[in-house]
Amino acid sequence: MTHASKVLPTALCTGTGHAGDRMHGLIRELYPVCRSITGDGVRRTLDHLQNFIPLQVHEVPSGTQVFDWTVPLEWNIRDAFIRDAGGRNVVDFKNCNLHVVSYSGPVHTRMPLEELRQHLFTLPEQPGLIPYRTSYYDESWGFCLSQRELESMDEGEYEVCIDSSLADGALTYGECLVPGTSSDEVLFSCHVCHPSLCNDNLSGIAVATALAGSLQTRSLRYSYRFLFIPGTIGAITWLSRNRQQLDRIRYGLVLTCVGDSGSPTYKQTRSGDAEIDRVVRHILDHRDGESRVIGFSPYGYDERQYCSPGINLPVGCLMRTPNGQFPEYHTSADNPDFVEPEFLADSYALCTSIVDALEANRTYRNLQPCCEPQLGRRGIYQAAQSQPDVEQALMAIRWVLNLSDGTSSLLDIAARACLPLELIAWAADTLSAHDLLAAEGP
Amino acid sequence: MTHASKVLPTALCTGTGHAGDRMHGLIRELYPVCRSITGDGVRRTLDHLQNFIPLQVHEVPSGTQVFDWTVPLEWNIRDAFIRDAGGRNVVDFKNCNLHVVSYSGPVHTRMPLEELRQHLFTLPEQPGLIPYRTSYYDESWGFCLSQRELESMDEGEYEVCIDSSLADGALTYGECLVPGTSSDEVLFSCHVCHPSLCNDNLSGIAVATALAGSLQTRSLRYSYRFLFIPGTIGAITWLSRNRQQLDRIRYGLVLTCVGDSGSPTYKQTRSGDAEIDRVVRHILDHRDGESRVIGFSPYGYDERQYCSPGINLPVGCLMRTPNGQFPEYHTSADNPDFVEPEFLADSYALCTSIVDALEANRTYRNLQPCCEPQLGRRGIYQAAQSQPDVEQALMAIRWVLNLSDGTSSLLDIAARACLPLELIAWAADTLSAHDLLAAEGP
Amino acid sequence: MTHASKVLPTALCTGTGHAGDRMHGLIRELYPVCRSITGDGVRRTLDHLQNFIPLQVHEVPSGTQVFDWTVPLEWNIRDAFIRDAGGRNVVDFKNCNLHVVSYSGPVHTRMPLEELRQHLFTLPEQPGLIPYRTSYYDESWGFCLSQRELESMDEGEYEVCIDSSLADGALTYGECLVPGTSSDEVLFSCHVCHPSLCNDNLSGIAVATALAGSLQTRSLRYSYRFLFIPGTIGAITWLSRNRQQLDRIRYGLVLTCVGDSGSPTYKQTRSGDAEIDRVVRHILDHRDGESRVIGFSPYGYDERQYCSPGINLPVGCLMRTPNGQFPEYHTSADNPDFVEPEFLADSYALCTSIVDALEANRTYRNLQPCCEPQLGRRGIYQAAQSQPDVEQALMAIRWVLNLSDGTSSLLDIAARACLPLELIAWAADTLSAHDLLAAEGP
Repeated sequence: MTHASKVLPTALCTGTGHAGDRMHGLIRELYPVCRSITGDGVRRTLDHLQNFIPLQVHEVPSGTQVFDWTVPLEWNIRDAFIRDAGGRNVVDFKNCNLHVVSYSGPVHTRMPLEELRQHLFTLPEQPGLIPYRTSYYDESWGFCLSQRELESMDEGEYEVCIDSSLADGALTYGECLVPGTSSDEVLFSCHVCHPSLCNDNLSGIAVATALAGSLQTRSLRYSYRFLFIPGTIGAITWLSRNRQQLDRIRYGLVLTCVGDSGSPTYKQTRSGDAEIDRVVRHILDHRDGESRVIGFSPYGYDERQYCSPGINLPVGCLMRTPNGQFPEYHTSADNPDFVEPEFLADSYALCTSIVDALEANRTYRNLQPCCEPQLGRRGIYQAAQSQPDVEQALMAIRWVLNLSDGTSSLLDIAARACLPLELIAWAADTLSAHDLLAAEGP
Repeated sequence: MTHASKVLPTALCTGTGHAGDRMHGLIRELYPVCRSITGDGVRRTLDHLQNFIPLQVHEVPSGTQVFDWTVPLEWNIRDAFIRDAGGRNVVDFKNCNLHVVSYSGPVHTRMPLEELRQHLFTLPEQPGLIPYRTSYYDESWGFCLSQRELESMDEGEYEVCIDSSLADGALTYGECLVPGTSSDEVLFSCHVCHPSLCNDNLSGIAVATALAGSLQTRSLRYSYRFLFIPGTIGAITWLSRNRQQLDRIRYGLVLTCVGDSGSPTYKQTRSGDAEIDRVVRHILDHRDGESRVIGFSPYGYDERQYCSPGINLPVGCLMRTPNGQFPEYHTSADNPDFVEPEFLADSYALCTSIVDALEANRTYRNLQPCCEPQLGRRGIYQAAQSQPDVEQALMAIRWVLNLSDGTSSLLDIAARACLPLELIAWAADTLSAHDLLAAEGP
Repeated sequence: MTHASKVLPTALCTGTGHAGDRMHGLIRELYPVCRSITGDGVRRTLDHLQNFIPLQVHEVPSGTQVFDWTVPLEWNIRDAFIRDAGGRNVVDFKNCNLHVVSYSGPVHTRMPLEELRQHLFTLPEQPGLIPYRTSYYDESWGFCLSQRELESMDEGEYEVCIDSSLADGALTYGECLVPGTSSDEVLFSCHVCHPSLCNDNLSGIAVATALAGSLQTRSLRYSYRFLFIPGTIGAITWLSRNRQQLDRIRYGLVLTCVGDSGSPTYKQTRSGDAEIDRVVRHILDHRDGESRVIGFSPYGYDERQYCSPGINLPVGCLMRTPNGQFPEYHTSADNPDFVEPEFLADSYALCTSIVDALEANRTYRNLQPCCEPQLGRRGIYQAAQSQPDVEQALMAIRWVLNLSDGTSSLLDIAARACLPLELIAWAADTLSAHDLLAAEGP
């Protein structure tokens, strides 16, 4: 049950204009939609993304068995409020969709505040903010509101209404494959199940959309697969349905929380020494500004599923400030002001560098391996003059020649030479053009 | 030539009362006995231990070839003194058995102090203390006394008497096997050849006896073998006589100097990366207070023999302050006051933790390895509520699930997760109880 | 085309007198000779070395193909000057052979200073020094002079003369093989192509000559091959002509810049973990004074060729201050005063230690591997009394016994024991003499 993309997409981050501004625009457009792990919010979100990239949209029926789990009933909500005796909505879903605990069943009743309290959730230490809460797999209902709102509520009776439905339906996710010459794949995955929260994870959706769009226009060695899926159950569903094709995935990244002002954080794959780990570390090491690499742990985002022992894909996670480490996390303060065009653009550039590195990282063989070849008569000293740092460029040439015995990739060489992969790749290109080097393998 | 245990033992450290006090009591009882590498002192010591644990006592005849060595003549001593012209015993074996150089041959003669001096040994830098000295494999005789005692002796003639015998007999050692379900063994070895010295090594004897006693009452996976042997020649003799069974030994510890106030010291096995090394390091890392791990060196105690290249057993050495690093070492100051119940109890607890860890450390396989299993419907979130730190307990659950692909033991998982093995083992038990995990191997 | 050595050599650094003074004497003798990558300067240099060591001198004709290169035309020079209008030589080759750019073609003409300037090279930041420059593989001519000399030249016309020839001839190099019992070889290589420059590389020539001379008088396990070759093209030529014999080379060192006051620097082989790397590091770690080990890079001296991927020999480079890191480098200040007897002698001693270590480093097997053998009855405690530190000597004995299971070389043992290889080798000799140890392999 899949729909092909219906419209001709327009690229998000190519052409004129600032990529960060465009991604921020997309975030503002998607912000009001009430998403959950199922339901029309996800559908509307994916529908909007099709303005930018071709997306296969999949619908997986409720009740479908996916590994140890079952696709749940579909949840939809039309309205919700808490109304005081005077008829005033003291809490109103229309103002902010965080007000309703996600997956709350329908309710329409009256009760005194004292009884209502057990259905109300606040953040006493952040009294102005509304928390984000869910009750998946646990039938109940509830409202989230700020501590200040709660404190302003009188004792007395309230009308409580959640006009929602939990019914057979489907789990919806989107998939975009950008083919390269090889069927080996690079996976980018982002979760689309959070309502009005921007860093977590409209930022990931925006960067993935921009990246997928820009890759459409490139000639690529690897194929790139982008998943827009509900967290946990979506990843489990996709993995369950694609189990036979998983061995194509050579590298993967979960994109989340990539719009805040924190410096980039890379969370390693389960093994910690996959090639994607080495590529991202190299790029972070050679870029300006701070960044950090943290070890894998079986917690966080969908890397939990991709890195489960029976799946064991080399999937890391790219973030700026990690989940739970910024005070706005899972609150109404994770709004469009919290993510900024500049940081979205920086995350996008980082992803582009990672793609560039994956594309460039090959293993070559020196075709004149006995002693150094004579560079002078081939004009290679001349060629190095084109580089900003000529001495460094010549060292890159020498390192590539010295280590290209078929056992070292360009990334290995870059690491050993302490030079950027970009320069090492330039050296490999230059030497290949002079028939001193030949790529190994496909 | 072995005697089975004659009496029903009483546990040293179970039941009511403080374990440290009981071990200290045992040390005080054994303190007066004049032990050496052979002779009745060892027999009386082993005899006393049979009040607490069932002990097989072995007698190996003098002259028996054991690898490159020969079991020596048996040494026994009844009395010894140096008597001055006035008939006063200025040095008297009855006061302290350290006064006689161990393995001194018999002598009864008169000589002037000048001639006697070459048979007298003192510690000029610790003038109040009597040194401990031996003359194994080197026929001679001598007395140890304090520098002050020596200085108070007048020139003139003395009557010198050592009423000892060096004659065909046997080397005696004790062995206690506590069987588990597996014939794979854990070895605990302590030397029983030192006379009135407490930390070196009545402390090791007491802790080993207490541990052996407590293991009698447990249901065990491994079998535990306790050796009470004379240093060097005893270990060589035991290894020589048990050469065909050595491959049963999977882990081993020499226990010595475990009663002083220093913090625990673990000396690694010859390879430094045996499982016992990793287990002990993990336990020391996760316990309160200081401790240290030192590398193997071919010096010290009987780990020298267990770790010789042709034997090469994974045997480490557990101490508090190592040999030679406390001023009381091999002097009359290593007396019952120098070892304290509190430190004996701490060493005993540490040994118990090591046993617990060895017993718990298995490799499991996740039975739902594709993506995370649904913990909620199995009540595992509920189960974690029983733990002091619920979040940590849930992380332990997740780590065990994630890494249990058949390649990681619980110890590996604990190390990677930076969590105590105890908690990881709880998680494995919990998951096993919910059929999410199965132990691999025997 | 080779000449055998014609005279009976006299050892440079054996017998009476200070080795450093003798090496410094050799440097002073060779200093005036105008060497280049080909020509009579190299021949005269090698001829002089035959006073000290037997040298095979090879002549390889111009035009010979050597891997990716061709042996160039032979360059010789008789005279060169720049003469002012008054007939005064303002620049005169007879004063300093650095004045002519090496491989300058012949020229005899008149030109104004303005036109001459493009052929003049100075060091504006070191205004008193003459630079060293070459124009191999690039037909041109030029003069080097100090910035001060240039500034003192009037505008006006000058007579310019370089009386040189570039013609078919040969590339000349010298080779000295000191045979050992094994055909496995240790390579020492130094470049002989620099004119009046002392640290770079008359120092390397002098130390190599002294070492080769002293090894003639020793009984050796390995064979030692000394190469005196022009840089780059000489190494390439030798490797090309000896390709079938390269697998004999088990260790190698390039010797260069070994006479200045800097502390020793060892540049590792391409792999960084060859046995020569471990040997040199061990020796540097256990010697007094500073030293440093730097990683391989595909730049520097002829290790570039020996460590090219198709050759891949375990050749490191021994220096004091590396090329380019002392201000005298490639200038007229690299003169006989810059290198000192004391530092030459220290480098020579270091090379001798390396040879000693390579000769001593074998793998042994403990013949009494089960438990410790009884050292006392064999007189080994006695033997240790001959060593300056008896306790350390006994530890060396114990470590050799413990680790000699056929998997550890003496160097491995020395590293693990943190003891000098020399002492470990003494222990191995002592134990072998008592039939407790036997060497493995050839």
